[in-house]
Amino acid sequence: MGQAADILIRNAVVVTVNPDFEIIENGAVAIKDGRIDFVGSDGAGNPAGARQVIDACGGIVMPGLVNTHTHLPMSLFRGLADDLVLDKWLTSHIFPAEAAHIHPDTVQAATLLSCAEMLLSGTTACCDGYFYENFVAEAVAKAGIRAVLGQGVIDFPAPDCPEPEKNIDTAQAFVNQWKGKNARISPSIFCHSPYTCSVRTLQRAKQAADKAGVLFQIHVAETRNEGENTGIGQLRSVAAYLADLGVLGPNTLASHCVWLSPEDIAIFQDTGTKVSHNPESNMKLASGIAPVPAMLAAGICAGLGTDGCASNNNLDMFEIMEYAAKLHKVSAMDPIVMDAETVVRMATIQGAESLGLGHLIGSVEPGKAADLIVIDTRQPHLCPLYHPESHLVYAVRGADVSHVLVDGQLLVERGRLVDMDVTAVMAEVSRIGQKVAKTDKHHQ
Amino acid sequence: MGQAADILIRNAVVVTVNPDFEIIENGAVAIKDGRIDFVGSDGAGNPAGARQVIDACGGIVMPGLVNTHTHLPMSLFRGLADDLVLDKWLTSHIFPAEAAHIHPDTVQAATLLSCAEMLLSGTTACCDGYFYENFVAEAVAKAGIRAVLGQGVIDFPAPDCPEPEKNIDTAQAFVNQWKGKNARISPSIFCHSPYTCSVRTLQRAKQAADKAGVLFQIHVAETRNEGENTGIGQLRSVAAYLADLGVLGPNTLASHCVWLSPEDIAIFQDTGTKVSHNPESNMKLASGIAPVPAMLAAGICAGLGTDGCASNNNLDMFEIMEYAAKLHKVSAMDPIVMDAETVVRMATIQGAESLGLGHLIGSVEPGKAADLIVIDTRQPHLCPLYHPESHLVYAVRGADVSHVLVDGQLLVERGRLVDMDVTAVMAEVSRIGQKVAKTDKHHQ
Repeated sequence: MGQAADILIRNAVVVTVNPDFEIIENGAVAIKDGRIDFVGSDGAGNPAGARQVIDACGGIVMPGLVNTHTHLPMSLFRGLADDLVLDKWLTSHIFPAEAAHIHPDTVQAATLLSCAEMLLSGTTACCDGYFYENFVAEAVAKAGIRAVLGQGVIDFPAPDCPEPEKNIDTAQAFVNQWKGKNARISPSIFCHSPYTCSVRTLQRAKQAADKAGVLFQIHVAETRNEGENTGIGQLRSVAAYLADLGVLGPNTLASHCVWLSPEDIAIFQDTGTKVSHNPESNMKLASGIAPVPAMLAAGICAGLGTDGCASNNNLDMFEIMEYAAKLHKVSAMDPIVMDAETVVRMATIQGAESLGLGHLIGSVEPGKAADLIVIDTRQPHLCPLYHPESHLVYAVRGADVSHVLVDGQLLVERGRLVDMDVTAVMAEVSRIGQKVAKTDKHHQ
Repeated sequence: MGQAADILIRNAVVVTVNPDFEIIENGAVAIKDGRIDFVGSDGAGNPAGARQVIDACGGIVMPGLVNTHTHLPMSLFRGLADDLVLDKWLTSHIFPAEAAHIHPDTVQAATLLSCAEMLLSGTTACCDGYFYENFVAEAVAKAGIRAVLGQGVIDFPAPDCPEPEKNIDTAQAFVNQWKGKNARISPSIFCHSPYTCSVRTLQRAKQAADKAGVLFQIHVAETRNEGENTGIGQLRSVAAYLADLGVLGPNTLASHCVWLSPEDIAIFQDTGTKVSHNPESNMKLASGIAPVPAMLAAGICAGLGTDGCASNNNLDMFEIMEYAAKLHKVSAMDPIVMDAETVVRMATIQGAESLGLGHLIGSVEPGKAADLIVIDTRQPHLCPLYHPESHLVYAVRGADVSHVLVDGQLLVERGRLVDMDVTAVMAEVSRIGQKVAKTDKHHQ
């Protein structure tokens, strides 16, 4: 503790998610210069003279949730088309809608909407991959949320990159533009998938990420027939194929990973590859159930993600935690797997580590960035409170978040965004949505 | 339309859940004498001179959700013990806690809490089975929610019935006491399960329900080894056993029904037995995945339920809808099954029909009771709005409910309970919870 704190959050149950998963009843957290300065008991030991005191009213303070897989502008297509087979969903609805309506203005508007939704439901950091990522970054910077952002690399004409041979250049330019520009934004490279990128593209994209020292994001083994679609035959798995190409490794974040065999899990373990688990998207699209308990047992770092709003259809990480816990219990026919502590770790510190941000965020510990959320537990569905970690996974809803701070900056106060006119953002996205509906087949 | 309406809800998207699943954009609903008097376009055709006008602000009006399986007083044990095998969970935590802490006062307090949670999250009717059901009924009557309530019948000493041979008498006395007493409360008989009740008890309980003309509730095939626990050997299924005993039929509501074979489904179909599907509880306890799509294909009437708060750990039916849709998609590896309309029907009209209340509630149609909810869609996670039924299943949260009416009585207004001091209710349950924690093994 140095001088007077900027903010003191007191009268709280602090779920630290430190290595011992310490929970401090009647706790307090002090923030100075955007960093956590003090974590401990509330009362006589409180740092004196804080500029602002937030009374948590007995609620829970915890690290902000980390959403490790998003496509932020796709909130524009939330609920546009559901309950369809993947191919029809993509080719009859999502791809045409993207071709007709994704441009800088719509990307910015929908990204702002997604940031509003994430902040209001307790997410303080996300990892995104899409097109026009420059405009995603502008909106993210405006919203104040922390993010790892990757410009999409794909061997098809993209809305912002009609010549696929230039896709790596576009992605690299994005990294160069945003590296060191904004303390909350880490650029990365988002290579879409093995089935939409050639060997040359996969390797060039990974090399570009390595050279720049940034995260390499890629969809891996989301569907059962991905190997077939990648043209690698049936003898080798997608994971083995990617490992052979040299695109797995400690700075690779592989999303979905539904169809990993025990051998694939060993490959991930050996290469230090990170995983983003997206249970709700995988369930809604009927992709399958990722072998997450086996990954965790192998020591693989796995975080949680929502996926884009077109396939979820929301960005609520409290929902994701509950799904992750319950899906794997019933899948394994074992109620012990994925206990509450394990799931809370995945949604916080492991998510942070999977993005290469474990030193900075993911737990409430002195020296870390003050990315914190406060949960108002004075609600019927959170009463009584026996075990805070149980409530976080099985009972808390995104709507219960009362305060959200990123880098010590208060972005949500008493359930309302401090710096964003969310009504205007919603009006703009609704206006664009009316145009989207006019060109969608369902609506014609 | 007769005289002036009591309440007019206008400026709404009305999801009627009528046989055609009609959705009225710019709609209005008028209420008179507790009944729905008008459903149609908002504007010139509005009934004149309503005593009270509720502006839905463009939000969704729909039938209140019907929770077909609850144990209301168990909210007292919400989150007391999780992530345990069923046997340990029950014998080391739940049973001792019930023995030590379940009595009239705690039952009333926890039931009020459950009613608060249900009303605030859009549930207007529930079906409950527990002990001290008289006190459950008193609390339910106070809260104003609609309910089918059954006094528990079990061949073990129960907290309120230490002599098991008197269990049927106690249950019948409850039915007699509440029949015709309160328009919103329908008594029923809750026979716990085939593995806790003898053949004689099962048959006597069903006969008592038939004689009184009330619903017969029973847990059926929740776990894989239920047949073994029932002592019926491996050659016959639990469903076949119950059918042989004559306890299935149109007034039987079987909860869970996880382990039904195609032959069992045919038995349910032939007997007209109703089903309560509880996906979250079945997932959390790792009971298994009920063959719901097959049941629906066979024409079985299946509603949705939360189960008690000790195994869920909340009573939010919007969550249940989303789980029901997503669980069966991934289980069947088919994103088309359990589409949004199917799931909304299960949570409303089919739930009502499964309780024998389909004539009265479950849809927004003239002549039905005005059990209605209003959803505030002016929120980032509900923007844009392309298809209301999609949002109801995949995006709306219980916290989005702004108004709730039962029999035309406004119980929730702008997200707050009109007639209940929920702060006092929470304080009382928290106080009891502190005592529960003191006697629980986890806490010692």
